[in-house]
Amino acid sequence: MESGEQPTVVFSPSAELPPLSEQELAVLRQVGQDWSAGLPDRQQRAAELPLDPALNRYRPPTPSRFSRIAQVEQFRAEAPDHLVAEAPETTGPSGERFLARLQRVLMGPPLRSAAVVQERIRKLVALPVLSSDLLSSVAYGPEAMLTILVLAGSAAVGLTLPIAAVLVVLMIAVGLSYRQTIRAYPHGAGSYIVAGANLGSRLGLAAGAGLMMDYILTVSVSVSAGVDAIVAAVPGLAPLAVPIGLLVIAILLAGNLRGVRAAGSLFAAPTYAFVVGILLLIVVGLAQAASHGFAATPPPPLTPTAGLSVLLILRAFASGATSMTGIEAVSNAVPVFKAPEWRNARTTLTWMVSLLVVTFAGIVALMHLHGVVPRPHQTVLSQLAHLTFPRGPLFDYVQLTTALILMLAANTAFQDFPRLLFFMARDGYAPRAFLRLGDRLVFSNGILILSVATAVLLAAFHGRTQSLIPLYAVGVFLAFTLSQAGMVRHWLRERGPHWRKSMLINGVGGALSALVLVTAAVTKFAEGAWVVVVALVVVILTATRIKRHYDAVHTALAAHTLPAGQRERQRDENQEAVERPQQVRHLVVVPVARLDLAALRALAYATSLGQPVFAVHVSPDEEEDDRFRKQWESWGDHLRLEIIVSPHRAIIPSLARYVEALHALRPDVTLTVILPEVVVKHWWHRRLHGHDGRRLRRAVRIFPGIVVTTVPIHVPA
Amino acid sequence: MESGEQPTVVFSPSAELPPLSEQELAVLRQVGQDWSAGLPDRQQRAAELPLDPALNRYRPPTPSRFSRIAQVEQFRAEAPDHLVAEAPETTGPSGERFLARLQRVLMGPPLRSAAVVQERIRKLVALPVLSSDLLSSVAYGPEAMLTILVLAGSAAVGLTLPIAAVLVVLMIAVGLSYRQTIRAYPHGAGSYIVAGANLGSRLGLAAGAGLMMDYILTVSVSVSAGVDAIVAAVPGLAPLAVPIGLLVIAILLAGNLRGVRAAGSLFAAPTYAFVVGILLLIVVGLAQAASHGFAATPPPPLTPTAGLSVLLILRAFASGATSMTGIEAVSNAVPVFKAPEWRNARTTLTWMVSLLVVTFAGIVALMHLHGVVPRPHQTVLSQLAHLTFPRGPLFDYVQLTTALILMLAANTAFQDFPRLLFFMARDGYAPRAFLRLGDRLVFSNGILILSVATAVLLAAFHGRTQSLIPLYAVGVFLAFTLSQAGMVRHWLRERGPHWRKSMLINGVGGALSALVLVTAAVTKFAEGAWVVVVALVVVILTATRIKRHYDAVHTALAAHTLPAGQRERQRDENQEAVERPQQVRHLVVVPVARLDLAALRALAYATSLGQPVFAVHVSPDEEEDDRFRKQWESWGDHLRLEIIVSPHRAIIPSLARYVEALHALRPDVTLTVILPEVVVKHWWHRRLHGHDGRRLRRAVRIFPGIVVTTVPIHVPA
Repeated sequence: MESGEQPTVVFSPSAELPPLSEQELAVLRQVGQDWSAGLPDRQQRAAELPLDPALNRYRPPTPSRFSRIAQVEQFRAEAPDHLVAEAPETTGPSGERFLARLQRVLMGPPLRSAAVVQERIRKLVALPVLSSDLLSSVAYGPEAMLTILVLAGSAAVGLTLPIAAVLVVLMIAVGLSYRQTIRAYPHGAGSYIVAGANLGSRLGLAAGAGLMMDYILTVSVSVSAGVDAIVAAVPGLAPLAVPIGLLVIAILLAGNLRGVRAAGSLFAAPTYAFVVGILLLIVVGLAQAASHGFAATPPPPLTPTAGLSVLLILRAFASGATSMTGIEAVSNAVPVFKAPEWRNARTTLTWMVSLLVVTFAGIVALMHLHGVVPRPHQTVLSQLAHLTFPRGPLFDYVQLTTALILMLAANTAFQDFPRLLFFMARDGYAPRAFLRLGDRLVFSNGILILSVATAVLLAAFHGRTQSLIPLYAVGVFLAFTLSQAGMVRHWLRERGPHWRKSMLINGVGGALSALVLVTAAVTKFAEGAWVVVVALVVVILTATRIKRHYDAVHTALAAHTLPAGQRERQRDENQEAVERPQQVRHLVVVPVARLDLAALRALAYATSLGQPVFAVHVSPDEEEDDRFRKQWESWGDHLRLEIIVSPHRAIIPSLARYVEALHALRPDVTLTVILPEVVVKHWWHRRLHGHDGRRLRRAVRIFPGIVVTTVPIHVPA
Repeated sequence: MESGEQPTVVFSPSAELPPLSEQELAVLRQVGQDWSAGLPDRQQRAAELPLDPALNRYRPPTPSRFSRIAQVEQFRAEAPDHLVAEAPETTGPSGERFLARLQRVLMGPPLRSAAVVQERIRKLVALPVLSSDLLSSVAYGPEAMLTILVLAGSAAVGLTLPIAAVLVVLMIAVGLSYRQTIRAYPHGAGSYIVAGANLGSRLGLAAGAGLMMDYILTVSVSVSAGVDAIVAAVPGLAPLAVPIGLLVIAILLAGNLRGVRAAGSLFAAPTYAFVVGILLLIVVGLAQAASHGFAATPPPPLTPTAGLSVLLILRAFASGATSMTGIEAVSNAVPVFKAPEWRNARTTLTWMVSLLVVTFAGIVALMHLHGVVPRPHQTVLSQLAHLTFPRGPLFDYVQLTTALILMLAANTAFQDFPRLLFFMARDGYAPRAFLRLGDRLVFSNGILILSVATAVLLAAFHGRTQSLIPLYAVGVFLAFTLSQAGMVRHWLRERGPHWRKSMLINGVGGALSALVLVTAAVTKFAEGAWVVVVALVVVILTATRIKRHYDAVHTALAAHTLPAGQRERQRDENQEAVERPQQVRHLVVVPVARLDLAALRALAYATSLGQPVFAVHVSPDEEEDDRFRKQWESWGDHLRLEIIVSPHRAIIPSLARYVEALHALRPDVTLTVILPEVVVKHWWHRRLHGHDGRRLRRAVRIFPGIVVTTVPIHVPA
């Protein structure tokens, strides 16, 4: 470690199990005291256990017909009541085991939680992983700016240099701004967190939603651009464009599921290769220009199709600003760096922005010197490469690495999208499943969702997602603007050392970002930016409702005390009370369809619990009723039997309504319905049996105090 | 009722619950005696129940927040332990209730099982329902025959009359043959049953599979023919052909789900209208011919493209034989007639065959008299109508009713396909779900499967299923042949009165059917008949495996006794023993993730059962482990707690393996795992919570003696 600071674990596997508050612990203490009364003490109860929960004297079982896997030693006792599980061996049917093995081959073996620190990445790995999106942007940003300017004729091309100069200022301002943000929020400095912390959760969600959309669009656009490059090289593959795109997504998915470090080592080389190529292009180009005394070739005469207006200049500015999409990548990824996280992240950000400024400025300068204008079937970058390296391998090298980096831009989104979802889920704004660290210590669920979303988008647009390019500046610049506005607010509140200077930097960055945002949103509104607005609203509303639900569940499940008098008959009311075992009154109901072995086992299980129990038979007609009664009497009529004739043959619905009626009769009694369930070996055999347990559980789910259990009986065939 | 005979109920709702054999009852008696030992007696146990299972003093509950439906009186007590359920009111979430109400509007209210006798149909209703397939065949059968003959030039057209004469013999033979079959098998005389009973189950399955394929093809071909007619009338609808076809299937589905009587009244009129139209055409046509002294117009000169060979004549014969597809419809439907079933069915069959012979012979005669030959864009029937009713409403009437009956031919298949599946399911050759009588006393599952299969076929072929026509004679004639061969065998064995005559009729019918079958199979093998052969093999193999599975399950579940000594430690072995409650040893395991209200409820439930119990916590890392231990101690450490650290964050898999290890340690102990389950109100909220119970149940399903229970806790939001 570079300094003595301890690594902080933000992406901890226990994020799924938030700790209890002090107040909750106090209530728990109180509840616990109630339990002691009338129960045998712990020692005595523990002595009654028929086996040792610490698995002493446990030997791995010999393979049986139902578990054909050779079981290895699976638990290691560290203390009498403390076991450590070894690497999970998949048990279960052969199909599931095959899938698990395939997964292990593709993803590598599962990593221990402790490895979360080792999985951190060094700056030299972080740079390519997190910068591919940003650096790939210079392949199209300068051209986008020029494309707008030439609308006003060749004279307007002269404005390239001043606009580029303002863009460089914006880049530096945003870069410095994020440097400050990373220092201020060392545990994760994404726009969602910063805007949320300073401007309120709603604007935080807006920033998060903007980034989410940007990530999804980045992946689909970059993949389809990559596929276009492949198809351009091998035209015969054109009909396979969509399958190839899906394959590329699958590769990105697999690479990222393997873990951050694995993805870094997989995807680092192309990024560095691209940077080397572009730098070479700039150096050689400028050297050539120096030999001409930096004399600029004037652009070819062009017929203006629009007047040179302020709006046009703003549009050119906004289009050029797409060169800096991806600059936010480091901010969400701070916790993934080696310690000291924030400092390493900040250094990496500085490198990234420096590379961006150098490549952007260099390309714009070469454009100016060569008087290049956009042409239909050749990119500006390709023209520059052609002019600088007229023929030979270097031209091909620049072309190839450009295609590769455009495809890899997607990888940055694969890094940041799942982390953004983690932060949102931590705050309750996204499903809790996104908190889960997968086998390889990455947020597999987020990676999967991103892959599915982009695959759907790609398939829906038949691989022509590039028409979506204009949309995605809006989301990014919304996030930039909100994040920096949040920082301005932050400095105003904190007023730490140099707060005025810091605020100025964030203010300038924020203002320029806002200018780009407004220009992009206004000029592209009809083209599709309205979709982004609608999507933003949908995401914010959904996230708010998810949060409201989780909050309600949390309140409902938090142990709370009630005045002693109210505690007795609370089961049926809105407020669920904390129940003591002494208060639970049981009634066990065993539905029996036919007195076969399955039913007898369920009856034996139910009776042996030692609680009040009776049996129910639902008969579709009166004749069957008589037949069943005879079976019951042959068996010996050991239990009270209630027969329900259902003249409409609705067996499970009748049973459900009967259980409901029992519940209504005595809401304070906990009903346990025990059904037999035939367990078969093959999945296709399952189709041949009813799912009574599942159906009944679903039917009575809305009533509290009803437990539906299935007692399995195994059938060899 | 026409005679004093009692109606026999074949399609009984209790077919799903087959009775126990005498031997099983004997074993049951023995098992029951074991139970008495050591258990409190029935009276005492019944007195311990906290409520009266007969629901005395039960008042319908006031609507609560979780059940917003106003509940009506639902159960009627007929005896102390005998309740009758009223018509099912759907409870549950609003979405389910809406669907149930929609279903009731479309299908009508559910019918009581007792109505199965009232739902029987009269002959005048049965005739159109069961004959539409057969009678519609004359719209294309004679033309199919002629199309083959003209290949050999106009001279061959003269062969129409002799071939038609043989076909009439075949029709009468098959008709008489089925009359005999219905008498011999009054509970269902389908080819599957007759062939199975006399030639062995494998040939029975072959006959059944042939019919199944025929039914599916009939529906898709007849629907697409109907759509073609609609599109021909309104060409603008051409791009909507597939949706229209699906709509027609949906109408047939809904009509048939409403019940047999409802389907009869819906679909009767078009069939009678068609019969009237064709009879009118024949009578008027013959009257016109009589005025010319029955002088036949010679057919126009045609260039032969093939020589007149025996094979060609056979092909013409086989093609003409498609006129009699659908003749088997009555045989499967015998139990649906009013009593006396077999006699009414036989009468209906006689009417049907008479109508077939008259219309077929009449059309062939008119064809001959007018010298009609097939033309590209006009059917032979349309040419005849045009010649007979040169202009005016009668021509349109024949055209319209022909289009309608072609579409309604599908309806016969909707009648018979589900019944065929019922018979197969009764024998264990098809999933038991096909035994279930739906709300309207029809086999809804069979109707649904047929609709889905034909809809898929229609969509896959983009509505051009008519290319499948050549295929479907093979299945039908296979069934005819096997059925009649079975009857020959039957008479040989029975040797009742007139057995020689009966056998002769069946023999002639069977031989002619076999001739058609072989001709069709050979001449169309390459065209697609091989598909039928493959499908036959697949159906027979699948059905055999289903049967084998059900037999194995039945054997495994049949109560069987074991020598007393072996009974003790049988749980883990292949043979599941009959267990007495006294033998069941319990151990309850409560996995706890976080000590919230849900966990406390699960703990209270588990503890209150009064069986040995301990808690397990699976921790993703050591820090969380400490945090949880503090919660547990705050609460009072009332139960033995075992902590499992899962360094790979595999919570449910670790838990599953731990439970497996406990099971391995003491296979004789029944483990009950009790998990809390958060129950939310809206389905979309469910996505926001894990499904630990379901996942754990699936993971430990392969081990016997492990019961996984979820204790629900309701959350208001």
